[in-house]
Amino acid sequence: MAPRPSGAGTGGVAVTRELVLQLGAADQGPLFLQIARAVVEDIERGRLRPGERLPSSRKLATQLGVHRKTVVAAFLELARQGWITSAPATGTYVSSDLPAKLPPFRRRALADRAGFDLPRRPLPAPSSTPRAGLLLLGGVPELGFVPRLELCRAYRRAMLGAGARALMDYGDPRGEPRLRRAVVELLTRARGVRASVASVNIVRGSQQGLYLAARALLDPGDCVAIEAYSHPAARGALELAGVELAPVPLDGEGLDVAALEALCAARRVKAVYTTPHHQLPTTVTLTAARRVRLLDLARRRRLLVLEDDYDHEFRYEGRPVLPLASADRHGVVVYLGTLSKILAPGLRLGFIVSTPDVAERIAGYRTFVDHQGDHAIERAVAELLEDGEIDRHTQRVRRAYRARRDALCEALARHLPGLEFDPPSGGMALWARAPGVDVDAWARRAHAAGVSFQPASHFALGRWPLDFARFGFAACDEAQLADAARRLAQTLPKARSRPAGDRP
Amino acid sequence: MAPRPSGAGTGGVAVTRELVLQLGAADQGPLFLQIARAVVEDIERGRLRPGERLPSSRKLATQLGVHRKTVVAAFLELARQGWITSAPATGTYVSSDLPAKLPPFRRRALADRAGFDLPRRPLPAPSSTPRAGLLLLGGVPELGFVPRLELCRAYRRAMLGAGARALMDYGDPRGEPRLRRAVVELLTRARGVRASVASVNIVRGSQQGLYLAARALLDPGDCVAIEAYSHPAARGALELAGVELAPVPLDGEGLDVAALEALCAARRVKAVYTTPHHQLPTTVTLTAARRVRLLDLARRRRLLVLEDDYDHEFRYEGRPVLPLASADRHGVVVYLGTLSKILAPGLRLGFIVSTPDVAERIAGYRTFVDHQGDHAIERAVAELLEDGEIDRHTQRVRRAYRARRDALCEALARHLPGLEFDPPSGGMALWARAPGVDVDAWARRAHAAGVSFQPASHFALGRWPLDFARFGFAACDEAQLADAARRLAQTLPKARSRPAGDRP
Repeated sequence: MAPRPSGAGTGGVAVTRELVLQLGAADQGPLFLQIARAVVEDIERGRLRPGERLPSSRKLATQLGVHRKTVVAAFLELARQGWITSAPATGTYVSSDLPAKLPPFRRRALADRAGFDLPRRPLPAPSSTPRAGLLLLGGVPELGFVPRLELCRAYRRAMLGAGARALMDYGDPRGEPRLRRAVVELLTRARGVRASVASVNIVRGSQQGLYLAARALLDPGDCVAIEAYSHPAARGALELAGVELAPVPLDGEGLDVAALEALCAARRVKAVYTTPHHQLPTTVTLTAARRVRLLDLARRRRLLVLEDDYDHEFRYEGRPVLPLASADRHGVVVYLGTLSKILAPGLRLGFIVSTPDVAERIAGYRTFVDHQGDHAIERAVAELLEDGEIDRHTQRVRRAYRARRDALCEALARHLPGLEFDPPSGGMALWARAPGVDVDAWARRAHAAGVSFQPASHFALGRWPLDFARFGFAACDEAQLADAARRLAQTLPKARSRPAGDRP
Repeated sequence: MAPRPSGAGTGGVAVTRELVLQLGAADQGPLFLQIARAVVEDIERGRLRPGERLPSSRKLATQLGVHRKTVVAAFLELARQGWITSAPATGTYVSSDLPAKLPPFRRRALADRAGFDLPRRPLPAPSSTPRAGLLLLGGVPELGFVPRLELCRAYRRAMLGAGARALMDYGDPRGEPRLRRAVVELLTRARGVRASVASVNIVRGSQQGLYLAARALLDPGDCVAIEAYSHPAARGALELAGVELAPVPLDGEGLDVAALEALCAARRVKAVYTTPHHQLPTTVTLTAARRVRLLDLARRRRLLVLEDDYDHEFRYEGRPVLPLASADRHGVVVYLGTLSKILAPGLRLGFIVSTPDVAERIAGYRTFVDHQGDHAIERAVAELLEDGEIDRHTQRVRRAYRARRDALCEALARHLPGLEFDPPSGGMALWARAPGVDVDAWARRAHAAGVSFQPASHFALGRWPLDFARFGFAACDEAQLADAARRLAQTLPKARSRPAGDRP
């Protein structure tokens, strides 16, 4: 321990000198507290020692030019906090039960680095892409359509209506009951999933849904199969649960279920994370035959299927393909849904549908993570679901996205004829092969030219082909998409692509 | 695999019979989708086999009594999803690439139990106490005072004002910048904590704050010291991070820092979780001498101090004692604050203040947990902080709580003279010894008589005296507190207390 500074003067003078400096500072709270704080600092820096006598309140008040009552209030506060003791006849003293040796004093209170050791294990890399003016990111919806006024009104009704007080209290970690009922209704009506309120957890977006499911349902060391191209944020949530990720190949029919079957035969696989409606990022829909095989495999192997149905509503040819969960009769599917795409990511609202025992375990875990959601917002959104506002909004958004998809396909075909892609049947993004192109370099050049898109390397787990790119079309209008395609063509590198898996 | 049901009839008849049943159900979505779903169910249950021919759309339409276009739409959808193939001249067939053997069909889609194995490790026990009519729970504030109208108005301004669109988007995992600035201002002005925006994370209440800090800053297996009586929800968050909890005794001066020092000398302690302002549950304020010693110990041992300052504003004699964080000059304190007590628990808003490197690691972890908070609500609350609304609310609440504290002390003294307690100098609860009383039994009897309070066993970690009880006074008015004290007296058991640590 460093010695106390030598040359510390008498307590009285030191206090006074210091206090004069302190009192000059603006906006430091009431005067008496400033005085008290200055005394504490003098004790901490060793200018005032345990047992030492302080100047009288009268003398100090004169020196500081404040009312004596202010100094008395400061002394009272210091005594309450245990820094000083006052004896009516003899005066005021620094407490003698303070440690004789105090830690070295630093003038600046704000340390700029931790004084303890941070864990060495790195966190998963953040999944976000730097944002340029034109956002071709598959997960970003059109925010101009969000029914903000309707949401405000519904929030007001929730906050001021019957039962509003309870919304401000601690509540059910599974979510506000009315929103859980509205979600059950939505699932039954539109997605063919027969759920009960007891099987639904409202969560903070599907990111939290996956995090909670991974934490509550998996053990560290479990092997989890995952699509070879997948969302890094989803991988991150799984990795933080300590599981080992085993990539499974994909093709034009979606997840290669035969490969998953072989993996399960070779080793104990606990779960598979999949995006069957539009595989993220390739946009492929899992075929009926593979769906049947996947569910049968899961039933036989007692495999947990984490089905992320993030964009159910956005299907432009025909109707949305019903989720795996709608055909699950053996309780193997844990279904993750979100309102981020059909309403707004900023609301952070999603849901998990499972069996009641699973739902209970997830809720039990969740109480320790953040206890519960914001039930007032949840009730407001329940109202928007009930009265059809969200349906109307979804229809509007779907029409716009279909037009944007067509515009993007057309613009890419015109400006980038070397790109290979099928127009996606739904979703918010297009997956294209750029043969022979270093797509990572392209993404960097495009970003510098004001267009953000995601190269395959952003999604690939392991050594898979990297000459693919994902272009989102939801957040830009038709003119912007045409502009973006032009800039993409201008920034297309001449260089050859790097080999698979050779990522920075 | 179970054999397919024998006696499956021809496809056409089976489909028709099934569809008639299905179409009777109300609210099952558009007719063509109901037909498609019925066909899929027939394939799944083995009545329709891969390669089998379906009846013509005309014939099926007649049988079902629907327009032929409806059946054509159903077939189109089934073909898109890969269930059937249509050949113009020869007819429509069940896809022959479906597995020949299908999993056993169950009529009810809703499994009532998981078809995979849940982890065997139990979750920490939930910390909530069953609620009776009169709530003497220390953590529940008076919800009638919450400025709900002001909050609605501020939310509306946030949602419809400048920059509102960005609030609906993905954003900063550290929180809405305006609320982070408002928190820095609050900390500087009222709590003597000099923070920068780079050192603040907005979180979903201090529950999430502690969960994230534990996950991001500790390693599984780390030893974490904790007050011997502590909040079970806080312990749960730490336990889920896989750390080992080492209880440290308490006395009338708060955490026994000498005992902590001895523990640190005996083994590697990574962190200490503490509630110095009003120890939870005992309400004791950590003395100045112990604060100095604790910070010095932390500096020397590079010990992370998790300071939970959950009730900073509620001090009735003098001013709030400044947090440890205000005196931390070595970056050892990670400070957890909450708006649950001064605003409303249901909002789930809290904050973590640390050094920038720590703040960054916590934010990096948080992106995978729930990505970010609700930035519209965060901006609304920032406005209420800036314009003094929350200060005014806090003053009003503080006055009410002081009066309630006095009323509870008086009522307990009158009705339960055998109780031993000091009136708490602040906070929302009173900690009392009930010598010779089985407090667990008392709590059960009181609950049956309409009064909820928490026995020491709710808080004790290990074998500590259990003849204590915690009575919250914030959620009940004076008349209710008097009523509660009467019922507490009536339900006081005659039985002797059970020995320390002998909990169910």
